[in-house]
This record gives sequence, structure tokens and C-alpha cells, in this order.
Amino acid sequence: MKLYDCATAPNPRRVRIFLAEKGIAVPTVQVDLRNGEQFTPEFRAINPECTVPVLEFDDGRRIAEVVAICTYFEAIQPDPALMGADAQDRAIVAAWQHRAEREGLWVVADAFRNAARGLKGRALPGPDDYEQIPALAERGRARATRFFEVLDRALADRAFIAGDRYSIADISALVMVDFAGWIKLTIPEGCTHLRRWHAAVSARPSATA
Amino acid sequence: MKLYDCATAPNPRRVRIFLAEKGIAVPTVQVDLRNGEQFTPEFRAINPECTVPVLEFDDGRRIAEVVAICTYFEAIQPDPALMGADAQDRAIVAAWQHRAEREGLWVVADAFRNAARGLKGRALPGPDDYEQIPALAERGRARATRFFEVLDRALADRAFIAGDRYSIADISALVMVDFAGWIKLTIPEGCTHLRRWHAAVSARPSATA
Repeated sequence: MKLYDCATAPNPRRVRIFLAEKGIAVPTVQVDLRNGEQFTPEFRAINPECTVPVLEFDDGRRIAEVVAICTYFEAIQPDPALMGADAQDRAIVAAWQHRAEREGLWVVADAFRNAARGLKGRALPGPDDYEQIPALAERGRARATRFFEVLDRALADRAFIAGDRYSIADISALVMVDFAGWIKLTIPEGCTHLRRWHAAVSARPSATA
Repeated sequence: MKLYDCATAPNPRRVRIFLAEKGIAVPTVQVDLRNGEQFTPEFRAINPECTVPVLEFDDGRRIAEVVAICTYFEAIQPDPALMGADAQDRAIVAAWQHRAEREGLWVVADAFRNAARGLKGRALPGPDDYEQIPALAERGRARATRFFEVLDRALADRAFIAGDRYSIADISALVMVDFAGWIKLTIPEGCTHLRRWHAAVSARPSATA
């Protein structure tokens, strides 16, 4: 088994943190996204979508999506549970993880990719070229700030995003917050619960994985 | 337990199909999205995000996201497995389910909501108003068509989206294809595998749930 990774990119970082929390070591292969290695014929043969992370099994099957990769490791090594311990808890974690993507990570990606000078004509990852949409960048910034406030309210009465236990929802939210830093969006001063949480999850050894 | 539902909306339909495939009956409460019931103080108290579906447990906890709701039912009633039977299978199903959302359902939603006359100022569901972005509607149509082709290639050598067994990925993809019909996007003639699959999954009794 091996993991196609890129040390500087947000999405593979989510998998690395997940594995670090589980104490699982997987050999990694670095893909140089900055220099376009994801668009080479060699990497397209591995993942036609030209993205990382990709988990490759020994039988050659591959999975190219963060939560799917984490689902595999959660199934083969349930402890510590990072995707919920019982049925209701699993559902609550899945719901927050989903929000951290759809209202967090993808929204920051909208803001970043539709405004970055170096990404003209590359508003989306993947093999196809799409023009930047400036209005989408602007909307992304507004929505990311709104999601900081959603997270802050959620954290008012609990230690972690989905409850009293650290989970994949914390991983996705941590990576979203740090990714937002790329476009100079920081947690508002008033979001004291989110600031406390961010300091706590950033201090875990897994955060540097 | 009860499910806040809307008989005409794509996302709650995914849950209804999932439950029908499991043979699980849950009492439903219809929310009249067309007449704005989701924005009433009563419904905001149930889900501040103003969306359906919402699953409400007897202890009052609520889950307002499709895959999270399905995760709960898969955990309490594993048969028939709709989210993968073993660790690798679970991951493969999760990856396709994710693509059916991010490259399918959300993309059709972009195309629909950013162009529909009746949704001016309402480009996103939820409590906040966002202006329509015409370029996003146009991009959505192009991407939805591209995803039809991705699905067609995937179905060339297997019966269902994620393998030989019907799964939640088929449910999300079916609802995406039917949702695309709202904006007059139909499966291209040349996508014969996708057409064969669409006929098969539409013929299952669950499709009318």
C-alpha cells in the first residue's frame, strides 16, 4: 500500500493527520503539484482527476478521496475512533465533517482558486481548465467567515467540533482554518471558542504530520 | 424518530430511496419548501440551515445531512449493505458517493440555482441570501455533462457505480441525473452504459420512494 501525497497541500494533510492520530504509517510518494507533476501522463495513469491524495492498495485498486481513504483506515483499525463510536455518534461526526467540507474547505478553495494570479484558467483542480469567476472568490470569502461563526457557536459548549471527542470533523475544520490563512482570512477576534479549539488541535502532535 | 422531508426535493429523495432499499419505515413530516416553510421561526428552530432532510431522534438530537443520516441507518441495520461490505469496498463506495455529490449533485445545483428566475438572490440554500452568478450556472452545465461521461466510463465494465452491488453511490447518481432533468440536461445519446444503468436503477421500487 502507498499514499500519493503532497506535503504542502491541504487535502493530503487531512489524511496525514488522520493516520498520525491512528498511529498508522503508510509509505508516501510525493507529487510535486507546484510544478505540475499531477498533469504528467505517469500521474494521470494513477489518477485521471490529477489530484492527491491517492491511496493505492497492493492489488492496484486506488482511492482518490480524503474521507474515503479515512473510511478504509477507520474500518481496519477502529481505535481510536475518529469517525464516531456508535451509530448516532457516527452520524453526528459525518454531518460535521460534511459541513467542514462543503461550507469550509470547498468555500476557501473557491476564494483561493478564483482569485490567485497563478491559477488563471485553473479555477478548479482536475484535468479540465475553467476560467476564474471573481464573484465566486468574493462569495467564498464571505462564506468562509460565516462558517468560522458557525464553528464558534458549535464549540461554545464542547471541546471538539462534533462532541467531546476529537474526530475527523476536527481534522477537516483545522485544515480549513489553516487553508483560509493562505488568503489572509483569520479567525475573527470575537470567535473565542474557535480560537481556543484551534490552539488545542494545532498543539496535538498530529497537526504537524 | 422522524424525518423532515420534502417530497419534491432532490436531497430528501436520496434518504427516502436509501430507507426503501433497507426496508426501513420512518415517519415523515413534509416541509413546504416551495412556499418558504423552511424559513419560518418554527423550522429554523429545527434546522437553522433551513434545509431538509433532517432526522430527529427521540432524544431531540438532529442530523441535517443526507450521508450522515444514511450512515446512521447503515450502522443500525447493516443489511443490505448500501455503503460497502468490507473495508476496501466501503472506501470505494464512499469515494464514488463523494464524486456523485461534488461533481454531480452540487454542480447541477450550481447550474439550477444560479439561473432559475424564481431564485434571484437565492443562489444557495440556507438562511443567507447570495446573488446568482451566471458564469457559475454555465460552468455547472458543462461540468454536469462531463460527469455524465465519467459515470458512463465507470459503468462500462460493471453493473453499478461502485461495483457489482447497488449502493448509496447509485442513489446519489440517480438523483443527480434526475435533478439535471430540471435544467433540461439529459444523458447524451453516446453514454450507452449510463443509459442502461439509469433505466435499471429507475426501475427499482425504491426509485419512487
